[in-house]
Amino acid sequence: MELKKTLAMNTLFDFYGPLLTKKQQEYLSLYYQNDFSLGEIAENFDISRQAVYDNINRSEKLLKNYEDKLHLVRDFKIRNNALKNIKAYIDEKYSDDTKLIELIQSITKDTNED
Amino acid sequence: MELKKTLAMNTLFDFYGPLLTKKQQEYLSLYYQNDFSLGEIAENFDISRQAVYDNINRSEKLLKNYEDKLHLVRDFKIRNNALKNIKAYIDEKYSDDTKLIELIQSITKDTNED
Repeated sequence: MELKKTLAMNTLFDFYGPLLTKKQQEYLSLYYQNDFSLGEIAENFDISRQAVYDNINRSEKLLKNYEDKLHLVRDFKIRNNALKNIKAYIDEKYSDDTKLIELIQSITKDTNED
Repeated sequence: MELKKTLAMNTLFDFYGPLLTKKQQEYLSLYYQNDFSLGEIAENFDISRQAVYDNINRSEKLLKNYEDKLHLVRDFKIRNNALKNIKAYIDEKYSDDTKLIELIQSITKDTNED
């Protein structure tokens, strides 16, 4: 599996996973987060490899479609980048102001991924 | 229509509207953003008042369901609150640092609602 694609899918799954069905979440999680092969998932659930492939393929399309519509990943990256710039600036100029640093941390609580 | 409910629905619609069908978006927009009555929408589209009601009712449930799963509105409010605290602090202590103020503005670009 291509690493770049895996990372991209993991990110989409992080943001939109709850919109998928439990079964779709289960297969995607095994495939992308736990690095199971299609064959291994098929065996585990006692279904055909093709059925697993179709399910995962459909989930990937759904995730991409959600991003096209809501672009949460894109917005997150933009916001995260802005935050990095602020942190660098504060590190340089106000590294002794712990209150300011704390306040900045409080924004990043729900945006602490990379 | 109750004002509080209208505001809440407008916010949900802002965040999750793109996930609805064009027709659902159209009715909701007329009902909540343009303050049309059910009867007026029904007349405009030449369908029954009941059909409009059912469509809007279903859309509201979908929007609430999206929020239950992704809680974008909740996260946005938390982040926005954190940003207000930072702005107030900077206003008080570093109001002459235009670079810092600019950097803070850059985060709020996509979070400038109230």
